Amino acid sequence: MSNDWTARIRAMFTVYGMSDSGNCYKVKLALEQLAVPYRWIEVDSTRGQTRKFLAMNANGKVPVLALEDGSFLPESNAILYYLAEGSRLLPAGRPERARVLQWMFFEQYSHEPYLAVARSILRYQPADSPRRAELPRLRERGKQALSVMEEHLRRSPFFVAGRYGIADIALYAYTHCAADGGFSLKDFPAVNAWVERVSNEPRHVPMPP
Amino acid sequence: MSNDWTARIRAMFTVYGMSDSGNCYKVKLALEQLAVPYRWIEVDSTRGQTRKFLAMNANGKVPVLALEDGSFLPESNAILYYLAEGSRLLPAGRPERARVLQWMFFEQYSHEPYLAVARSILRYQPADSPRRAELPRLRERGKQALSVMEEHLRRSPFFVAGRYGIADIALYAYTHCAADGGFSLKDFPAVNAWVERVSNEPRHVPMPP
Repeated sequence: MSNDWTARIRAMFTVYGMSDSGNCYKVKLALEQLAVPYRWIEVDSTRGQTRKFLAMNANGKVPVLALEDGSFLPESNAILYYLAEGSRLLPAGRPERARVLQWMFFEQYSHEPYLAVARSILRYQPADSPRRAELPRLRERGKQALSVMEEHLRRSPFFVAGRYGIADIALYAYTHCAADGGFSLKDFPAVNAWVERVSNEPRHVPMPP
Repeated sequence: MSNDWTARIRAMFTVYGMSDSGNCYKVKLALEQLAVPYRWIEVDSTRGQTRKFLAMNANGKVPVLALEDGSFLPESNAILYYLAEGSRLLPAGRPERARVLQWMFFEQYSHEPYLAVARSILRYQPADSPRRAELPRLRERGKQALSVMEEHLRRSPFFVAGRYGIADIALYAYTHCAADGGFSLKDFPAVNAWVERVSNEPRHVPMPP
């Protein structure tokens, strides 16, 4: 596994992403922390769903990672798992890796659709947008997700095996900027302390402004 | 890997699930096809979010798999990955496994929230439920997900590496019963043919009625 890893970090990855997206930031943060060289190509998936981009990902979303074989890998958490295998960011044990996936599926199903969407409405929609009507439900569900994280982080410094890894990266992306969506992390002290811990990890880079 | 697998299939798994849920059916189908012995404990997560159940999964959702070490693993697709590692249902290569995760994250983010929710509204909500107002948007997004699948299945018999595996199981769960949510698979001939292929796989079991 580590041979494979050593060979792979010599490759140059290309990421197609939108800097302001938390899902894209996950990939940037992992690449920086793994010290893997990469090229970043800025794509505004909300506008330019060009034919060229849809050929990379028929689902029309960023980020997309260009693999060594010329194919394209979408889905931020699949990319994280792919990049992190064999590194300190993903435990080797089978039950631990199942836990990593558990938290990454939690993130995409029970967390991101509320925290990221509330953020997106407040940042990109006009003040009189009818989409603001969605905010109360998004806040309620988002707080529920933060409560589940709080419960876990009261007992453990990081999400899996007590060590920083890609489950933390996946959940950090839209948690550290939860205030953008109108959430206060003061109500979730263990989450707040974890955000601070994650931002102090070696080679951490902030989300682009 | 195969030694570990051989040892593991001697263990008895316990699944906490709701038979009518596609997410729970995924786990049943994988266990049946892997010929792994298991106990099924019926839990109605819509009602009985008992303290005992929340201790297994603070996020309050089924399915949950009881692991050999006494801990509990939620998230249907994390369970599928855990069960399938080292078996014919999950390819061993790193890029192939990344593709499996890509399709499983697609399922949970871009497919299940539309097909499963439309099905749930039509099956479990009264005919005059205000939630029916969500149906047009759910149908539009659900059809978009089916189009992405159609595009892929025109070129490949299964989702990853041309072979049946857990990405197919994950996507089959709510696709084969798409009609329950008001979707017609006749508009998606490659998806329709794939549903037929999946149902003809060895040791296939139907979703409980």
